[in-house]
Amino acid sequence: MAKRLIVIGGVAAGTSAASRARRVDPSLEIVLFEKGEYISYGACDEPYLMGGVIDKPERLLVRSPEEFRKKQNIDICLRHEVVRIIPEEKTVLVKNLNTAQTERFSYDALIIATGAKPRPLDVPGADARNFFQLKFYEQALSLYRFLNERNPKRAVSYGAGFIALEMAEAFHLRGIENTIINRSNRVGGRLEPEIEKEVKAILEEKGVRCQPETTIKEFVKDSSGMITRVVTDRGDFETDMVLCSIGVVPEVELAKSAGVKLGRTGAIAVNERMETSIPGIYAAGDCCETYNRVSGEPTYTPLGDIANKQGWVAGENAAGGNIIYPGALGSWSFKCFEMEVGATGLLASDAKRLGYDVFTNVIEHRSRTHAQPGSKKIIVKLVADKKTHKLLGAQLAGREGAALRINAVAVALYNQMTVDELANVDFAYAPPFSPVIDPILIAARDAVKSI
Amino acid sequence: MAKRLIVIGGVAAGTSAASRARRVDPSLEIVLFEKGEYISYGACDEPYLMGGVIDKPERLLVRSPEEFRKKQNIDICLRHEVVRIIPEEKTVLVKNLNTAQTERFSYDALIIATGAKPRPLDVPGADARNFFQLKFYEQALSLYRFLNERNPKRAVSYGAGFIALEMAEAFHLRGIENTIINRSNRVGGRLEPEIEKEVKAILEEKGVRCQPETTIKEFVKDSSGMITRVVTDRGDFETDMVLCSIGVVPEVELAKSAGVKLGRTGAIAVNERMETSIPGIYAAGDCCETYNRVSGEPTYTPLGDIANKQGWVAGENAAGGNIIYPGALGSWSFKCFEMEVGATGLLASDAKRLGYDVFTNVIEHRSRTHAQPGSKKIIVKLVADKKTHKLLGAQLAGREGAALRINAVAVALYNQMTVDELANVDFAYAPPFSPVIDPILIAARDAVKSI
Repeated sequence: MAKRLIVIGGVAAGTSAASRARRVDPSLEIVLFEKGEYISYGACDEPYLMGGVIDKPERLLVRSPEEFRKKQNIDICLRHEVVRIIPEEKTVLVKNLNTAQTERFSYDALIIATGAKPRPLDVPGADARNFFQLKFYEQALSLYRFLNERNPKRAVSYGAGFIALEMAEAFHLRGIENTIINRSNRVGGRLEPEIEKEVKAILEEKGVRCQPETTIKEFVKDSSGMITRVVTDRGDFETDMVLCSIGVVPEVELAKSAGVKLGRTGAIAVNERMETSIPGIYAAGDCCETYNRVSGEPTYTPLGDIANKQGWVAGENAAGGNIIYPGALGSWSFKCFEMEVGATGLLASDAKRLGYDVFTNVIEHRSRTHAQPGSKKIIVKLVADKKTHKLLGAQLAGREGAALRINAVAVALYNQMTVDELANVDFAYAPPFSPVIDPILIAARDAVKSI
Repeated sequence: MAKRLIVIGGVAAGTSAASRARRVDPSLEIVLFEKGEYISYGACDEPYLMGGVIDKPERLLVRSPEEFRKKQNIDICLRHEVVRIIPEEKTVLVKNLNTAQTERFSYDALIIATGAKPRPLDVPGADARNFFQLKFYEQALSLYRFLNERNPKRAVSYGAGFIALEMAEAFHLRGIENTIINRSNRVGGRLEPEIEKEVKAILEEKGVRCQPETTIKEFVKDSSGMITRVVTDRGDFETDMVLCSIGVVPEVELAKSAGVKLGRTGAIAVNERMETSIPGIYAAGDCCETYNRVSGEPTYTPLGDIANKQGWVAGENAAGGNIIYPGALGSWSFKCFEMEVGATGLLASDAKRLGYDVFTNVIEHRSRTHAQPGSKKIIVKLVADKKTHKLLGAQLAGREGAALRINAVAVALYNQMTVDELANVDFAYAPPFSPVIDPILIAARDAVKSI
């Protein structure tokens, strides 16, 4: 009898794992249970659907269940919720949400890819029909329909992470007046202050109102159950809708109740093979921790590309292979209006906490040559170790060529290069793409001089 | 008495060298002789001036002689041609081209940055007033004036290197019908065939006529001395002007006559300190050879960014410092209409010649996610060593994000990474900038599977 692999969850990590497992072992029986109605969608594209950049929701669906079945012989069960894992029996209990019947399935290997969910908000009125969170495809559909049907004029966002910033652009494209209410005075998540300044500047330029250091106390609803007013500790805000994007939390209840160990971050702990504390049970994606190569620490880094890669490793190993997940550098990017931000490695504050004698520098340069009319300002911040000159992290911001540039620094970090070595690398130069010496090399040269 | 540094030539390498020397030794007397009327200009920007992307010639002038004098105390002598170097006396003979007087100057250190000149063409009629080459600022001015005053309708280019390709776009922007006549059937210089195919496709799409494997025999002039017809071994071509861009040759006569050794490439041989065979005489930029880190061979690589970096090293060392030029990887990029090309490292054919057991792969992917409307095709070709899996080179082509992407591979090459290691690097992902797994990582993964 064929061995059976069960995968729980069908977005980035789950589908990547199932596909990889199929490649490794063509004879394996692979069953993927997804409690929602959709699999394999591009959640990171959701803000672009809202802004009209992407013209219809279906474009976010990368591969259909039929494709998985026909091309890869992967059995996809939608609206099937795994309600219990019984490791000692190597079985799972699965509830069919259409029929409410529960069935038992045995497995030889199990991959938990339950992902993350939006952090819940415990504020009166958060149950309103115009209160939205944006993560699952179903949530995207619901917000999309609301925007099209109700044509709101004002939107309050709660939280100022990069979903909120991407949505600020989407609201702007729709002509919706957006106010971002935020408990701290920071925007964009893990940004260096000099990079954050650029993001704040473009929000101001585009007329996005920021209301920092403010806590929402209540959402006041009208008779139809719609929020019309947001009550905060700094006054009230009238609105036609609320977008709550105060982060995500890993979906770990199922794993935890099965005795799978969680890490310090609260996400599932895994080894370098993406195996959990229970042999034969793997985890990948937003539900588990990610090893950071630069800090050497497990982190919680719920990003689509990491989920995809971890899924690949979990799938390979669950199917009998033996590869390791090499860890992340902490590379990420986002776009907020024309402002591009790219980041990799440690923040200066991380590096300090880890005991490094921290050097930082910030340079301002251009995206193209002096003479090219489209040239835009680029800000580069480097973080390095004073003792060894080793690069520890970098962030870039600019209205052109900032996001893609960060990958060259990511490769440098992977190789534990010093700023001196980085300054020596021969980058490609052509006037429409870069100044004669690339901003990253300018920053590295500057670091060599000042470190 | 202060020591004197003499720099011969004032474009990329010469000005970079003088500036660096000033930083290193504030007391040094620095004199820069330039035989032309202009210094410190962006030669690589010239095609963009012709196409009207850059609105006036003066924008190409990066720094004025006055700036060098006032801000850095560097004495710039325009229209001063160094006609002889006498190493045994440590003097140079300099001819003032305004007065035709020759004067002798002593030096403590000398930097030769005489650059390159367009390869001369020995064909009857190449002395015509509408025969142009594009390298020096004076040549750019002359072509620019012709285009504006005579408003030509047809242009024949001879040679299909990247100047010709950049100028094809410029001609197109001016509504000039362009025919590229070329002795070989290759375009774009050192391109892999799969990348070249993309460039040829865009030329065809834009209506640029390519006439490969054709040799020009004569330029037929009318009574006013203007070329009206180009005679080739494959028929005649009527035209209103000719652009000859058949490459450049290093300007080495002065060095050679002083006894400075040339390398196998015909350019000035230098050591890793950018010093020539004569102690105290340095060379930098398009007149000298460039050490290639990947092949371990001296090459002739006349590119602006390399000139700038070599000038920096020569300037530092001539002023008493002691640094080395780390060598180039052979990174370069160009734009031809919307097509971006980026390259680094060895061609497959180079690698074969050097005795590697060569692996290559070509993948086609996208510049953004599946769902993003602006996503463009990207072609990645990798060259690696089958035995060690070490990356040896890469080329990318695409209508978005191809040029900037190459730098991440350049950093990988600098670190002698294997394709397996490159596949493991954590690149930044956001839908407007890349698919969930970057095309470079897709190519590296594909190489790992197929090598």
